Amino acid sequence: MQINTHPKAILLLSCPDQPGIIAKISNFIYKNKGNIIDVDQHTIHAEKLFLMRVEWQLEGFAIDREDLNKHIENLLKPLEASWQVYFSDQLSRIAIWVSTQDHCLLDLLWRFRAGELAGEVAIIMSNHREVEQMATQWNVPFIYIPIKKDNRGHEETQKKILSEYKIDLVVLAKYMQIVSGNFIKKTPVMINIHHSFLPAFPGAKPYDQAYLRGVKVIGATAHYVTSDLDAGPIIEQEVIKVSHKDEVVDLIRKGKDLERIVLARAVRLHLEHRILVYKNKTVVFE
Amino acid sequence: MQINTHPKAILLLSCPDQPGIIAKISNFIYKNKGNIIDVDQHTIHAEKLFLMRVEWQLEGFAIDREDLNKHIENLLKPLEASWQVYFSDQLSRIAIWVSTQDHCLLDLLWRFRAGELAGEVAIIMSNHREVEQMATQWNVPFIYIPIKKDNRGHEETQKKILSEYKIDLVVLAKYMQIVSGNFIKKTPVMINIHHSFLPAFPGAKPYDQAYLRGVKVIGATAHYVTSDLDAGPIIEQEVIKVSHKDEVVDLIRKGKDLERIVLARAVRLHLEHRILVYKNKTVVFE
Amino acid sequence: MQINTHPKAILLLSCPDQPGIIAKISNFIYKNKGNIIDVDQHTIHAEKLFLMRVEWQLEGFAIDREDLNKHIENLLKPLEASWQVYFSDQLSRIAIWVSTQDHCLLDLLWRFRAGELAGEVAIIMSNHREVEQMATQWNVPFIYIPIKKDNRGHEETQKKILSEYKIDLVVLAKYMQIVSGNFIKKTPVMINIHHSFLPAFPGAKPYDQAYLRGVKVIGATAHYVTSDLDAGPIIEQEVIKVSHKDEVVDLIRKGKDLERIVLARAVRLHLEHRILVYKNKTVVFE
Amino acid sequence: MQINTHPKAILLLSCPDQPGIIAKISNFIYKNKGNIIDVDQHTIHAEKLFLMRVEWQLEGFAIDREDLNKHIENLLKPLEASWQVYFSDQLSRIAIWVSTQDHCLLDLLWRFRAGELAGEVAIIMSNHREVEQMATQWNVPFIYIPIKKDNRGHEETQKKILSEYKIDLVVLAKYMQIVSGNFIKKTPVMINIHHSFLPAFPGAKPYDQAYLRGVKVIGATAHYVTSDLDAGPIIEQEVIKVSHKDEVVDLIRKGKDLERIVLARAVRLHLEHRILVYKNKTVVFE
Repeated sequence: MQINTHPKAILLLSCPDQPGIIAKISNFIYKNKGNIIDVDQHTIHAEKLFLMRVEWQLEGFAIDREDLNKHIENLLKPLEASWQVYFSDQLSRIAIWVSTQDHCLLDLLWRFRAGELAGEVAIIMSNHREVEQMATQWNVPFIYIPIKKDNRGHEETQKKILSEYKIDLVVLAKYMQIVSGNFIKKTPVMINIHHSFLPAFPGAKPYDQAYLRGVKVIGATAHYVTSDLDAGPIIEQEVIKVSHKDEVVDLIRKGKDLERIVLARAVRLHLEHRILVYKNKTVVFE
Repeated sequence: MQINTHPKAILLLSCPDQPGIIAKISNFIYKNKGNIIDVDQHTIHAEKLFLMRVEWQLEGFAIDREDLNKHIENLLKPLEASWQVYFSDQLSRIAIWVSTQDHCLLDLLWRFRAGELAGEVAIIMSNHREVEQMATQWNVPFIYIPIKKDNRGHEETQKKILSEYKIDLVVLAKYMQIVSGNFIKKTPVMINIHHSFLPAFPGAKPYDQAYLRGVKVIGATAHYVTSDLDAGPIIEQEVIKVSHKDEVVDLIRKGKDLERIVLARAVRLHLEHRILVYKNKTVVFE
Repeated sequence: MQINTHPKAILLLSCPDQPGIIAKISNFIYKNKGNIIDVDQHTIHAEKLFLMRVEWQLEGFAIDREDLNKHIENLLKPLEASWQVYFSDQLSRIAIWVSTQDHCLLDLLWRFRAGELAGEVAIIMSNHREVEQMATQWNVPFIYIPIKKDNRGHEETQKKILSEYKIDLVVLAKYMQIVSGNFIKKTPVMINIHHSFLPAFPGAKPYDQAYLRGVKVIGATAHYVTSDLDAGPIIEQEVIKVSHKDEVVDLIRKGKDLERIVLARAVRLHLEHRILVYKNKTVVFE
Repeated sequence: MQINTHPKAILLLSCPDQPGIIAKISNFIYKNKGNIIDVDQHTIHAEKLFLMRVEWQLEGFAIDREDLNKHIENLLKPLEASWQVYFSDQLSRIAIWVSTQDHCLLDLLWRFRAGELAGEVAIIMSNHREVEQMATQWNVPFIYIPIKKDNRGHEETQKKILSEYKIDLVVLAKYMQIVSGNFIKKTPVMINIHHSFLPAFPGAKPYDQAYLRGVKVIGATAHYVTSDLDAGPIIEQEVIKVSHKDEVVDLIRKGKDLERIVLARAVRLHLEHRILVYKNKTVVFE
């Protein structure tokens, strides 16, 4: 998809499956002089659930932005739909959380600056000082929040910061701390990169686990964070072949290439509003 | 996509891009009590060309099959569209052409019998006798048409056979003969498997060419046959890594795994009416 | 590796790491006028374990085959090595075990006949009758051994058959029965294909598990069978990308392509004596 | 392979194939109390050419570094071998050449700093000013050498700089200028990243070419630079699937991920002295 500088509206919706949904929505847009750029839809037959993403140009569209939600509310009420409207020129505000490893962070910073990812990196937050210099060089505020064992006090500070900086999305770019279920409930959406092809090797030290098991492929998984550790909805996965020659350090090195790419793809899909979650799974409209 | 035993209609269309196409078509289906199963569309902005595939259930649909073309003709005339309607229960009749290698043939026969591919293998045609026994074991008529140099006489026989058996699709499953441009114009659609990642190594002996060049990946390409040798619209490609340890025989062996899979995928996409061709390229609605 | 018609000897060995092993062995072969075709070695530093594969031409080699074991015994005694010698022209005798699915079976039969796999398929054994016709067409004895719940009596019959047919390798090509630990101890080496990227989704119905979890890649794993279900040493793994569009039937279809290729590769590596097992892992000298 | 801090010697050699080479070399190392860490060898039968890489620990090795060449000269003279000895602790000095794109540059800088690549980035050279700030931030001297059409005068300056900084390897990390054949002959080894799966789409604008041809995979190729444009020995290649949805900008974006990884792998293999070139191909001892 070519990044288009003309502003567009994006509607993401899910509702009980029934005939005429596409007709209803495409009619609405057409009658109001919107030009549909992209439609994608999916039906989960076992759940009788219909999911859809529509993207249309706002130039010449007859409904003002501030009124759009109201119109769509009226349109979709009879469908009992869950839905959300986004505008392509309203950039998400992102917090990147890291611990000491900087490869995903640097990769994301480069991609945002290069325009591959549409959004604003508002802050970099870490429980260590290693990446502070990198944050400074890339002109992103660095916030150091140390973490003490047996004390969740830092979560209050984190919550305050997220709110203060109006963060829409937290990217856990090798943040090696467990986030509490309570915290997750009250914060913006979080995307995490886990360094294994989940559900294999959840938890700590997946590359050590992979080495011990003697697998011939390793992987990385980007997923939304839920209160179940490494068990949230999977957005993207990628793997690479390994052999007996690869020791744990080699798995780590090869894995970093996967982690960067998988996390970047997941963040991109999220920021372009291409992901719908149902149950514990994702529908990704690529 | 789950193979559904309920009959469905599939509309493939391309037309100049303009607002309201999706609304128009989805309305038409909805008003006639059809339930859309799948919509996919694509716009080639540089060409201002809109392409679409819609699939809907025929159960309860208000228009009879025999009248459907007329209705769609009326509907789409203002759009200046090229279009075609298919019914999922009208199976294509396939001719598989081979020379002496039988790996793609056996693979296709298995997939048709297993229900992975929807269609009927009406004949196996070869310019050699090697696969005759296989044809017999799989209960498919085998037609032997020898080919003499400097004599295109066999093409007349081939044409007659294709017509007699009412063939919709010819699959060149390692048919190592060049088909003349004249013949191509007058025959059903042909899909060929070429054993390289085109446009690299067109023509004869691509694995020898790949060995000489010292590439680190080899590939296979399924494409529609046009009068330009190995230059028709590409449907599917796949590659595999190779190393200096691989001699030509190893490239051939590894390549056969690619050839089978790539050809089977292309045939599947074609038989499910998921491919639109424009210029010399394909749009594949997967 | 080009299949060479000239007979070769292959030595597989593992021993405590120490200097001079390669010199010792290559000297031995050189002095006896053997020409080394291929050497590969690996050291597991954490275990101080040295593993090696040497392949040399037997033409002109000064030691007779029947005396070779004795000479190597003398040579390697000081190294406290485990070792085995194979001759490339002594073909392994293989039993393929299946239940009702025939895709891996057909694929293996084709590869043995085409010369991709060096060995003799001595029998096809099944607890069902579905593949009997295929066995007959490929001229391989078919042995039907039904399995009753709560009665391991069939294992006695299986053992007798394996012994009678002098089987060296059992390939579980979608054999959907659990083999008892007792049986495994007393039978030839067994290679199994499991339809997931182990250790994810062991046990029954891995594609259903994969669908439920919403993974974005699925895989297949070939491994040696041990008494721990789906937990033996992994020989080969391969994966393919999937999406929300893929229902369980699609995962099964895509997975079959993986299963065929992964199992065939593992069997090939085993038959070429390229695999050494230590602890629960494999070293694969490709 | 684990990076080992203990210094090692690496011998790369090629010679006419003959019996006893491995015995000769492993004996030499063993007698002089060297412990072989890794041996890899390959025979190109069609050329009767033997190629080998041996790596051994220098601790306790009986021959001094400064005398090693002499000893090996004596050892290998009868074999008519071409050979070279390297020491793992003698780091190569690298010049990275770029034009305006900085993704490969940043990736390489990160990898050298992280220790994934062993070597010293001595200079960054560009015909533009875009990456100057990046060079400064990473504390690498930046050398700006503008290029005028129809004037190869800059090559004299480049040669002087390479000599002055004692450069062993030039990495063309998206350096969009053609280097003259004369220059190549007189300079250190050069590795280039080309943004296609060569030999497809050599020359300018390969992503535009790929888009026009409608390929379903794109790739990147790292190769040694020779006077034939994009035709030097291929070191590494990688590909990614694309679809009709990908416009040229998407191919460029996806391709950048390939370019980074492929170039980094090739540089790594070169710096670890794992590559031998014969004719126009590489043998890569991974």
